[in-house]
Amino acid sequence: MRTYFDCVPCFINQTLGLVKSANGTDCQAEKVLKQVLTNLASIDYSSAPPVMAQKIYRTLYQVYGERDFYYHEKQRFNTLALEVLPDIIKKIIVAEDVFTEKVKLSIAANIIDFGKNAHLTEHDVFKSLDEAITREIDQEKIQTLKNAINKADKILYLCDNTGEIVFDRLLIESMPLKKITCAVRGKPVINDATLEDAKTSGLIDIVNVIANGSDAPGTVLDDCSPEFRKAFDDADLIIAKGQGNYETLSGVENKRIIFMLLVKCSIVARDIGCPTGMFVIHDKLCN
Amino acid sequence: MRTYFDCVPCFINQTLGLVKSANGTDCQAEKVLKQVLTNLASIDYSSAPPVMAQKIYRTLYQVYGERDFYYHEKQRFNTLALEVLPDIIKKIIVAEDVFTEKVKLSIAANIIDFGKNAHLTEHDVFKSLDEAITREIDQEKIQTLKNAINKADKILYLCDNTGEIVFDRLLIESMPLKKITCAVRGKPVINDATLEDAKTSGLIDIVNVIANGSDAPGTVLDDCSPEFRKAFDDADLIIAKGQGNYETLSGVENKRIIFMLLVKCSIVARDIGCPTGMFVIHDKLCN
Repeated sequence: MRTYFDCVPCFINQTLGLVKSANGTDCQAEKVLKQVLTNLASIDYSSAPPVMAQKIYRTLYQVYGERDFYYHEKQRFNTLALEVLPDIIKKIIVAEDVFTEKVKLSIAANIIDFGKNAHLTEHDVFKSLDEAITREIDQEKIQTLKNAINKADKILYLCDNTGEIVFDRLLIESMPLKKITCAVRGKPVINDATLEDAKTSGLIDIVNVIANGSDAPGTVLDDCSPEFRKAFDDADLIIAKGQGNYETLSGVENKRIIFMLLVKCSIVARDIGCPTGMFVIHDKLCN
Repeated sequence: MRTYFDCVPCFINQTLGLVKSANGTDCQAEKVLKQVLTNLASIDYSSAPPVMAQKIYRTLYQVYGERDFYYHEKQRFNTLALEVLPDIIKKIIVAEDVFTEKVKLSIAANIIDFGKNAHLTEHDVFKSLDEAITREIDQEKIQTLKNAINKADKILYLCDNTGEIVFDRLLIESMPLKKITCAVRGKPVINDATLEDAKTSGLIDIVNVIANGSDAPGTVLDDCSPEFRKAFDDADLIIAKGQGNYETLSGVENKRIIFMLLVKCSIVARDIGCPTGMFVIHDKLCN
């Protein structure tokens, strides 16, 4: 997906959120903001939005030093997800189709996205998870997903955010584990999941997990490690969670990618052709 | 008032709103956006926000040619204000203190600000005017305003927006007309009132009205005409409506300026020291 003019205020808001989180001097904040604005002035709008978000992060690293700007918030939401998990399992275990409920929870947990909302609260997450059970999801698409999983030999599951990864683990537990490789980001960026979160969530205990070698909040293939590129090329099904993965991979040809996401912005909504707030399973080869 | 980092997303949103309103090509939109971002990258944060807004407008003029981007919307809100005026007069004419009600209406009409909300609807304006009568306003400040008006020999009243100017006229009718000069912007900028709106509103029929010679959405003294500067220097009381006039004049020393505004953003609210949404009379020499 290309970058739209309307993405620009979002980049600025992300930058301001990070600058506040970094808690540095006014001089540092001004330096970051000016550099980001300079980058935005020469942006290539044919690139996906996470390519710009990556540049923003690199600017922040230059000014404040390399660090995980949302480290504490990430731990907070991982802990929250792990704490609520047992009660949620009790609720869905009696469902007619547990797999569908797990898909919905994994998409509901996609709300934990500091790129879209740096002021996200526990209440927002509880609400999204609580409502998941009553949310509608396209049953044909669920069946497409199930069939694709059964048919595939090698599945690459691309995780998105911290907290959310706990519910990805819950969903993946219902898949043929030996077929699956999970990928996380290569470095901390926004609140995207890294290998540390794969450990915290327990994902690493059930499937093979690799880092993608990149610090983009999505999957910018040219920026990923050879190990990840091999896993990507070898997979006959890729399940990609979240907007960042949709934005960076929706233009990839000749690859079966099933996107699963909560549509959080009007630009992605327009690109997919659905309203914001939707729980979407988007099969690139079928649409 | 200086420009804060948090003003930057607002500048971008204003630009995007104007670009949509201009209804040009993608190429023109990209040119405007890149130029505005380049300007923002070298912004002087000690300047008031309207100085940057003026630069944005000049960029738009360069790309699309000089025009009044919100011409039709401006006429729409002038017409709306003139249409609702007789009914509103009937309501307030029975009030214990008609002057106070007129001040509140003039501040309530300050909501007609496309810089803050390019998607403003008639409903928003009706709601603001309807609620005006029930809104609280500092009675001590009203008394300060009355006393200052009585005491002053020459009053300069700085108008802000179209539509709103109709309610400024209503308020000014309760002032000693011979003392008053009104000023409007020198050129169309956002939906700020110009001489044409002073005519439409009937203001020009009751007091002396001058244009300030500037295309900034505020009062940037260095940018104003000698005629306006003389009126400013000669006045012993200046009544300044709206955020743009507050932002550009709150730093002026040795001049009695009474600001009257609806506080529409958290940055101005923090600067004044009040919550957003407040009806404020702010007497610079008393605070």
